[in-house]
Amino acid sequence: MGGERIFLIGLSGSGKSTVASLVASELGWDCADTDRIVEAVAGSPVAGIFASEGEARFREREVEALELVAQRERVVVATGGGAPTTPGGRLALARGLVVWLQVEPAVAAARLESHEDGEVRPLLRGDLRARLEGQLEARRGLYELADATVDAGLQSPAEVAAEIVRAWRRAGPGGASARIALAGPTPAEGGVAAIVRTRPGASACPVVVRRGALSGLGPICREASLSGRAFILSDANVEPLYGSAAAASLGEAGFEAVRITIPAGEEHKNTATLQRVYDRMLAERIERTDFAVCLGGGVVTDLGGFAAATILRGIGFVHVPTTMLGMVDAAIGGKVAIDHPLGKNMVGAFAQPRAVVIDPAVLETLPEREVRAGWAELIKHGLILDESLVGELERRAGQPGSLAAEDLIARSVAIKAAVVSEDEREGGRRSLLNYGHTIGHAIEAVTGYSSYLHGEAVAVGMHAAGLIAVELGVLDKRSLDRQQALLRAYGLPERAPGVDPEAVLQATRGDKKVRAGSVRWVLLERIGQASVRADVPDGVVRHAAEAVLR
Amino acid sequence: MGGERIFLIGLSGSGKSTVASLVASELGWDCADTDRIVEAVAGSPVAGIFASEGEARFREREVEALELVAQRERVVVATGGGAPTTPGGRLALARGLVVWLQVEPAVAAARLESHEDGEVRPLLRGDLRARLEGQLEARRGLYELADATVDAGLQSPAEVAAEIVRAWRRAGPGGASARIALAGPTPAEGGVAAIVRTRPGASACPVVVRRGALSGLGPICREASLSGRAFILSDANVEPLYGSAAAASLGEAGFEAVRITIPAGEEHKNTATLQRVYDRMLAERIERTDFAVCLGGGVVTDLGGFAAATILRGIGFVHVPTTMLGMVDAAIGGKVAIDHPLGKNMVGAFAQPRAVVIDPAVLETLPEREVRAGWAELIKHGLILDESLVGELERRAGQPGSLAAEDLIARSVAIKAAVVSEDEREGGRRSLLNYGHTIGHAIEAVTGYSSYLHGEAVAVGMHAAGLIAVELGVLDKRSLDRQQALLRAYGLPERAPGVDPEAVLQATRGDKKVRAGSVRWVLLERIGQASVRADVPDGVVRHAAEAVLR
Repeated sequence: MGGERIFLIGLSGSGKSTVASLVASELGWDCADTDRIVEAVAGSPVAGIFASEGEARFREREVEALELVAQRERVVVATGGGAPTTPGGRLALARGLVVWLQVEPAVAAARLESHEDGEVRPLLRGDLRARLEGQLEARRGLYELADATVDAGLQSPAEVAAEIVRAWRRAGPGGASARIALAGPTPAEGGVAAIVRTRPGASACPVVVRRGALSGLGPICREASLSGRAFILSDANVEPLYGSAAAASLGEAGFEAVRITIPAGEEHKNTATLQRVYDRMLAERIERTDFAVCLGGGVVTDLGGFAAATILRGIGFVHVPTTMLGMVDAAIGGKVAIDHPLGKNMVGAFAQPRAVVIDPAVLETLPEREVRAGWAELIKHGLILDESLVGELERRAGQPGSLAAEDLIARSVAIKAAVVSEDEREGGRRSLLNYGHTIGHAIEAVTGYSSYLHGEAVAVGMHAAGLIAVELGVLDKRSLDRQQALLRAYGLPERAPGVDPEAVLQATRGDKKVRAGSVRWVLLERIGQASVRADVPDGVVRHAAEAVLR
Repeated sequence: MGGERIFLIGLSGSGKSTVASLVASELGWDCADTDRIVEAVAGSPVAGIFASEGEARFREREVEALELVAQRERVVVATGGGAPTTPGGRLALARGLVVWLQVEPAVAAARLESHEDGEVRPLLRGDLRARLEGQLEARRGLYELADATVDAGLQSPAEVAAEIVRAWRRAGPGGASARIALAGPTPAEGGVAAIVRTRPGASACPVVVRRGALSGLGPICREASLSGRAFILSDANVEPLYGSAAAASLGEAGFEAVRITIPAGEEHKNTATLQRVYDRMLAERIERTDFAVCLGGGVVTDLGGFAAATILRGIGFVHVPTTMLGMVDAAIGGKVAIDHPLGKNMVGAFAQPRAVVIDPAVLETLPEREVRAGWAELIKHGLILDESLVGELERRAGQPGSLAAEDLIARSVAIKAAVVSEDEREGGRRSLLNYGHTIGHAIEAVTGYSSYLHGEAVAVGMHAAGLIAVELGVLDKRSLDRQQALLRAYGLPERAPGVDPEAVLQATRGDKKVRAGSVRWVLLERIGQASVRADVPDGVVRHAAEAVLR
């Protein structure tokens, strides 16, 4: 998930700074040291910051520094030993290849004691070796999530650096797994699968994936520093099932709840419904410090999120997606919108929720067809960005129950969260998430959003995109077959028979992803890797469209 | 305009770093050095950055570093000698007291040559003294905009520091004038009055104030990196007057223009009009790379800005305000919105334009009453934040023609730009801009937005707020008289006779600024200084409302 960045983590005394500069010089990159950045910004040494501001504030400064360097390319970063201990720190680390310089506490202590400058990190005062042992104990679980581990105890800095350079050349930017961003600790009672943070200074949005999370909604809102009243927005299908549970959890946490119910169905994701939500909110004298809870599928989170983003110029909101599609896609990433007669999601905003609460148990009350369609977006995340997720999906193809789904949802959420954190506004990587959507959206539009569920249309769209990629020689036939077998194994359609290909082709040209009149296609290069092409000939598109619409 | 921050500017060799640390130690503050921050972030020395990335990139890094430290309180900052040479640098400097360490180039050269580390700034290689003389020549006009100047040539660093501490104690945070933010150079042909930049990384929005600026609209849009087609949004009054001039300038700069006209008047700033704008944009197949030009008064910039902020989840836009009110208030700061039957501006967003183009010549075609009402917001900026602007307004009370207005508009714009740059979302200082608006909005709402222009209602509201402040003992009677005399001199009303006080009091409670049910009042403490109070007794409000509504 990372760019051309290497982050070195490990105990004080593991040699991160020295090694970072050697690796940088070998690769011809820059190097940076987050402690030095913190000191330069704060205008005082690390010890002084600990003394005057405390450890918590130091960690905040460290995250700021990490985020600054994580925006650069071609940089090797020596991080403070505690960098992986905060959620923000882990998210920043996930933007590069993370290497743990493993060293015995006794060795690190000896090195620190022999340092000329005599500067000892504040947390290490006292019996150095014992302290380092304690830190390693506490942090080992986090350090082990690094993408690579190098023995920095017995080898010289030059040898350590050489090993890191080899690891980089083997793995490259694609070798970073972002695993480290997924570690605890967690809001309320646990289960944070990912953290969305779109820019330094923006508040981080934790995504909780946990069976029973709905009953923890109130405490999670408290932890997200929300206050005032909770305006629970739901639809006529979901409200009777989960509205009371949501209101009860919020009530127990001390929030007064106002419940607003909209009609169910994509055909109501429009201006008229939005206007009714505004009317209710304003009639209830909503204030800027109140917040919204969007409890439902993609229609509710899209429309409710847009209402929250615009009422009184924006209040906080929390998404509680209740469909598979909402969980792995619609609720993650801050895209909110309503439809317009001339196209889906044509009016909207980028607005990040304060938290996303995913309770896979609610999938059990969904119609089977809807759950099945939801797998399309989860599978898509694997196809474009994570071959290992594809492998896991293939292994489990027989048992797509909601119990089995919990960890797969968490993995899928983590992929999307990492992508949108890096590229909120779809300037780059985020556009890969549109895989299958150009034809998919067109099929939905042409059929009036009534014949095919979104996931089904996207599955057909992925098939079409696969045919295009093979015809252009971008993708090999064997990979296309693998994609098709996977979609089939999860009960997803490959064709949308009877839909007019001409109308679909026409509709693709009205897509939001159009730039300077030319359609931008996301195509697979191999399983787990995709890219964007604007030069696909009309004939190739027509050929593929006709094949899937026969 | 600043917080508790001191920025030291001046040539290399003027002793900024040494003096900064002495001043910081005397005041008990932190100190910082932007060169050190840049080096820490870039991971290489200043000379290396110049060599590998060039001066322009170095200046960008310098601005980033300045913005980082300008977010802190109680800090003394040594800046690079070129910090005031970029618009972004000047805007960051305007957040504190700016002190110029004045030194003869010969003295500075001698100091730099005697430095142990031998590091010489890249721009100074060669004949040091001659280079410094050239730099001083080029930068003197900028350095002279500092809030204080200290002779750093003959005095010791300790003496210089002591003089700065005295200057700070005399002036305090209110002593920073932000003059430095107003200096050129300028987009297209000149006249940048201010730059709005709400956070590091966000693109800066230049505000151009210049007679004839309308004919430079196209080039300004090019400089703002806009591309695609220009959707010119205007109303039925303004379009016939200036629509063709705007389209012509855009056309000359190579932009295809699409012209959309909405009905004129606040009663059309609603969902129905917004919907018609969306319909037109989508029918024209608007793309994400296209942009909007909002040409008109506050209704056009508010509604057009909101349409741009939400169509396709947001495209770029440029404001071209054609009313006095739009110029000094509505178009600056990124608040965009439409009205709702239950209140003004109830649905909207915070979205910064890419540029604001103010051509005071267009005021000449406005009805006199509208221009007069527009002065209310300009006067308000002086009353709450800048006593010297009030003095200037008093001196010129006889001749409020548009020619005289140009520099006053520029000053007013600079005040608003500085406030919103610091506090886009009205968490703090920005709320001061609501002075006079609590009663003012209520009068407008109760009279159906038809009897009083916004500026007139705000003038009455400022009178009411003045009465409240005097009754609470916050403001002295003499200052209230001075405010009233100034409003009168500019032809603004003090009363709104015949409006029902009960209805007005009721309406104040529905204001967006309400928090936890209590109304937040902006009150003057003296001319040029205001604060927010949530504890104003109902009886005091009633008394003031009755006085202005008799």
